Amino acid sequence: MRAARLHEYTHDMSAGLSLDEVDEPQVSTPTEVVVSVEGAGWCQTDNHIIEGMWEQYVEQPLPMTLGHENAGTVVETAEEVELVSEGDQVICHPVQTCGTCRPCRQGETMYCENQSFNGLTTDGGFANELLTSERAVIPLPDGVDPVDIAPHADAGITAYHAVKKAVDGLNPGDTAVVIGVGGLGHIGLQCLDAMSAADIVAVDLKESARDLAADLGARYTLDPENEDIASEVADISDGVGAAQVLDFVGADETTALAPDLCAAGGDHHIIGYGGHIHEPAQALVNGEFSYRGNIVGRYTELQELVALVERGEVDLHTTRYDLSEVNDVAVALEAREIDGRAVITP
Amino acid sequence: MRAARLHEYTHDMSAGLSLDEVDEPQVSTPTEVVVSVEGAGWCQTDNHIIEGMWEQYVEQPLPMTLGHENAGTVVETAEEVELVSEGDQVICHPVQTCGTCRPCRQGETMYCENQSFNGLTTDGGFANELLTSERAVIPLPDGVDPVDIAPHADAGITAYHAVKKAVDGLNPGDTAVVIGVGGLGHIGLQCLDAMSAADIVAVDLKESARDLAADLGARYTLDPENEDIASEVADISDGVGAAQVLDFVGADETTALAPDLCAAGGDHHIIGYGGHIHEPAQALVNGEFSYRGNIVGRYTELQELVALVERGEVDLHTTRYDLSEVNDVAVALEAREIDGRAVITP
Amino acid sequence: MRAARLHEYTHDMSAGLSLDEVDEPQVSTPTEVVVSVEGAGWCQTDNHIIEGMWEQYVEQPLPMTLGHENAGTVVETAEEVELVSEGDQVICHPVQTCGTCRPCRQGETMYCENQSFNGLTTDGGFANELLTSERAVIPLPDGVDPVDIAPHADAGITAYHAVKKAVDGLNPGDTAVVIGVGGLGHIGLQCLDAMSAADIVAVDLKESARDLAADLGARYTLDPENEDIASEVADISDGVGAAQVLDFVGADETTALAPDLCAAGGDHHIIGYGGHIHEPAQALVNGEFSYRGNIVGRYTELQELVALVERGEVDLHTTRYDLSEVNDVAVALEAREIDGRAVITP
Amino acid sequence: MRAARLHEYTHDMSAGLSLDEVDEPQVSTPTEVVVSVEGAGWCQTDNHIIEGMWEQYVEQPLPMTLGHENAGTVVETAEEVELVSEGDQVICHPVQTCGTCRPCRQGETMYCENQSFNGLTTDGGFANELLTSERAVIPLPDGVDPVDIAPHADAGITAYHAVKKAVDGLNPGDTAVVIGVGGLGHIGLQCLDAMSAADIVAVDLKESARDLAADLGARYTLDPENEDIASEVADISDGVGAAQVLDFVGADETTALAPDLCAAGGDHHIIGYGGHIHEPAQALVNGEFSYRGNIVGRYTELQELVALVERGEVDLHTTRYDLSEVNDVAVALEAREIDGRAVITP
Repeated sequence: MRAARLHEYTHDMSAGLSLDEVDEPQVSTPTEVVVSVEGAGWCQTDNHIIEGMWEQYVEQPLPMTLGHENAGTVVETAEEVELVSEGDQVICHPVQTCGTCRPCRQGETMYCENQSFNGLTTDGGFANELLTSERAVIPLPDGVDPVDIAPHADAGITAYHAVKKAVDGLNPGDTAVVIGVGGLGHIGLQCLDAMSAADIVAVDLKESARDLAADLGARYTLDPENEDIASEVADISDGVGAAQVLDFVGADETTALAPDLCAAGGDHHIIGYGGHIHEPAQALVNGEFSYRGNIVGRYTELQELVALVERGEVDLHTTRYDLSEVNDVAVALEAREIDGRAVITP
Repeated sequence: MRAARLHEYTHDMSAGLSLDEVDEPQVSTPTEVVVSVEGAGWCQTDNHIIEGMWEQYVEQPLPMTLGHENAGTVVETAEEVELVSEGDQVICHPVQTCGTCRPCRQGETMYCENQSFNGLTTDGGFANELLTSERAVIPLPDGVDPVDIAPHADAGITAYHAVKKAVDGLNPGDTAVVIGVGGLGHIGLQCLDAMSAADIVAVDLKESARDLAADLGARYTLDPENEDIASEVADISDGVGAAQVLDFVGADETTALAPDLCAAGGDHHIIGYGGHIHEPAQALVNGEFSYRGNIVGRYTELQELVALVERGEVDLHTTRYDLSEVNDVAVALEAREIDGRAVITP
Repeated sequence: MRAARLHEYTHDMSAGLSLDEVDEPQVSTPTEVVVSVEGAGWCQTDNHIIEGMWEQYVEQPLPMTLGHENAGTVVETAEEVELVSEGDQVICHPVQTCGTCRPCRQGETMYCENQSFNGLTTDGGFANELLTSERAVIPLPDGVDPVDIAPHADAGITAYHAVKKAVDGLNPGDTAVVIGVGGLGHIGLQCLDAMSAADIVAVDLKESARDLAADLGARYTLDPENEDIASEVADISDGVGAAQVLDFVGADETTALAPDLCAAGGDHHIIGYGGHIHEPAQALVNGEFSYRGNIVGRYTELQELVALVERGEVDLHTTRYDLSEVNDVAVALEAREIDGRAVITP
Repeated sequence: MRAARLHEYTHDMSAGLSLDEVDEPQVSTPTEVVVSVEGAGWCQTDNHIIEGMWEQYVEQPLPMTLGHENAGTVVETAEEVELVSEGDQVICHPVQTCGTCRPCRQGETMYCENQSFNGLTTDGGFANELLTSERAVIPLPDGVDPVDIAPHADAGITAYHAVKKAVDGLNPGDTAVVIGVGGLGHIGLQCLDAMSAADIVAVDLKESARDLAADLGARYTLDPENEDIASEVADISDGVGAAQVLDFVGADETTALAPDLCAAGGDHHIIGYGGHIHEPAQALVNGEFSYRGNIVGRYTELQELVALVERGEVDLHTTRYDLSEVNDVAVALEAREIDGRAVITP
């Protein structure tokens, strides 16, 4: 079968992955599952992986097929699998977990001590077929198209996971700020709207993104090039500040907003990355705010997000590309020319 | 009466405060209270105030009497005061609150929108008498000496406040790390021991501090000059890391421990300050840990801490000094020559 | 001024209150406020008070003016009041609190140890004017009519308070059951819809109430006379049961639903009352569900509900009556002939 | 091998179980484990099962070997088992779970939709060997004797589970009441002491139990035959009441204490059972207390309890009996003649 694989780290996105002919995967342990991939979302993290930005955090056996946002149809199941059968449509949680370590037992599947991560530490879904396991697939409800939902497997649950934590700190009338209304941000904004009665303020450089935000439920939109974010949010919130900030950008400029932007006791959630935090400890003491890291959501959070999608609470803007176009997608994303989410359709 | 007042910011601790003769305070609104100060703890923050380190965060009318850790005996009450009467011994929460803003109504008295802070934004307790209000005093149980308990008014509740948040994330057998077993740290450690069944690891440069930590309930002690903290904690916790870190130092070196020290989903609580956080956003994403700011605890948390003191769960090591010795104390603290907590006895 | 007062407990609703001529209230302590009552909601609890059903729980000095759901215009303020001025429109939280007891300090204003409750333990708002205090009034946003919002002062925050607790236990796709879509229930249902992404199942004997529920956001409606509630909810929830049940009826029949209706770990919130709970302890053990009592919401919860009303998230169906019609209203309510909420307009 | 089996429900405890000769269990699926039982605690629930009291709640295939509190040594593992090996000492969580249903994924292993429960719905440990699975065994730390720890597999985690919930609602100085200092109660009391700084009040009819409670950390003990529990607790708590009540008895008399005993907002945890709740809904509304059901704790909670035992925080009083004495134990328990916990040693 064909698979888009990374052979070595590079900053040349036009030649990041190569289309190789490889063997089809087969089940070898009692709970494995093979999925015929119908949609595989391309993520900013794929560019980061190609650049070698994850090498210091995880072990990556090269060559490796990328692609961690996958959905498709089950084509083979090992003998102990009961959750799904051949022919079932599924979305694939990117993390294959052991189920027996303490984090798995606690429901914190993202912290599994024996995990492999599709397209990050093991072969992913930019290929005709994906080898995964019963613990990492979720059957799709009728009427949900695998291609449309695929990006929720990572973009979606990452946004959902952060929003779910934020919602705990949001009362009706509180102010929630969404920084960056891109692939993750526009999902997060919709989740926030569905799960809380907070006033949503969306911040984005692009006018089209701000318009989208307004359509999706933002009560206010702000343009960081022409408006002072912290001061506008202070006005909106009667001087209180933002109870919760969801930073889908994670640049130096956005993390630096926290001391002035956050309400006392508030949280600045780091979801996007690339930049740094540079703040005096005293700022966190004086304002009693937190910088909270956010990783991909849990298996059960993907179930909850699928429920939101099924109920029409979260729409995803996607554009489809052929497997042969993976490097074009990488280049276009670098140039910020992708509207919505690119989905590869092997 | 005599009052130790700050006239201008200086880095010369030997001449930070001057002993002035000023008028005794008198009640002028219906809920005010005057307390004869018996003990007033000297805090690292007093040095920071003298240096001007708080000027950019709060308004400070100079000259101003410092001293935010006060306890003593009520000598005058305004007509509407019902909680205390003349002659009652009290500990003074440093924050005088309005009681009617939304944060006060929520119990978040530290976020009071109309607050004044003893010795930080209004005259404090390095004086014979202190003007405060019914909303900021807590009657002492029988047998508790005001001089002994005074430092709990700030050092104590700051440590307690952070520990109370940390305890929510600690199961029996989890690892909690206390960085810095000084004035606040040794209180925090005792609170942690009383309120959780976590394994406590205490980290301090000084052997005497580590010995104290072991006496007060630490299961392990580490010397950061000779041991690799993150790797030792990894061993102690079977590779999981510290579920909760209480950083009573807040230096560049201690905040930099977080990515390697914290367990997935863990918290690095910033209580001490002076240094900075410098970390890539990606580190917080990869480890899903948080930097959580911590301000002084609430009024009700001081009530809870008094309950701990009354039950013998928290001991405080104090040394007494005369009001005329305030600058000597400041100098000694700078030189790390104060053992336990210095208490001024006006 | 005129006041509708209870002189003695009776089961004859047609003669429950008498219209007396009494003195207008005047401020006597520094934080009191007098409000000219424009709207005063009539509540099922008013009938219960007239019947003597609260006598064993609280002290009631008779004669007493009833009315605990009040809104109007400030006509007098004592000298220390800063939150409101003469002419401001306000909604009155029914509980006048001390602000200095520990529950008040914790934000749990409903547990104030020195409280008085309008129309339950002190004179209420079925009168031209109401004596209350700065701690019990909330300024209304522009464009909110006091008569329309008055019932939120009790019916609203009681429903909101229970829903806020329930929302903590509701993930997207979970099932929430609302039993009784009357005065409180139809508010609770809207709050639930605004604050969660749960699937709402509304249960009511009346077809009109079920239709209203469907309009206000219920995904399913059930008729308890013709459908087996527990079995229908089991079907709706794929056998899981209801994560949260909001019982606005509180009859023997509705509390008896809990063992079969609640999901494992779920809650059956008791908001309505009149009936009993009769269940074996073993049922609670086997299903690990809880019966959770619910009292009126906190002051800050009324602020949050006002924010929901201002944003158009919660509509209230009201009918207006003259002060002279109070007993007619009581009789009509007993006969279940009141549509929406009756509001007295003194 | 020998197994003590229930053939039919009876109220005659002297002939409840019969000692049968049965085949030794063998693994048949990839994750099963066979344990040689060294200790199997006898529980009040065993008496209840014999009486048929669980027949209406769960399916019970008779004849069935009872015994749900087991510990011993692994003697066989199926091919996919990685957590334990032959020769390892383990404690057996009573619930064998699937690991793939949503509750298992959430960490709520007790709500597993495909569970079997040792000695309740499948063969238990009153036998030489027990068939269980990798998902239901926890390796014991060095130095922990399986016979001593066996009763924690149910008595222990049930008590721990309830206490863990209670601790969330306990601040230092709050009052926690433990009703019944028997097999579960004396474990719960120790957990409460280790995990909170609340004031513990222990209530028991037997003086020896009250003395034990005082030894284990109770600050107050009360004798319900000679003292008015609610009024004593009101005194102890300055009129506030008990923030948390742990009812290890669950009789009509103990559940009836809740309205007078619980603080506003407090919880009455039902752990013991046998009696009923009979209360007006209005009582729960007026006092805003809850009756909270409690089932056996989760797998991860048993890990945490093992950590407490390893650290010496929880002692268990046990008496050993031979497998042939099971019916004698049942009779003795009925007569309240068992001191501490009876452990069968097959």
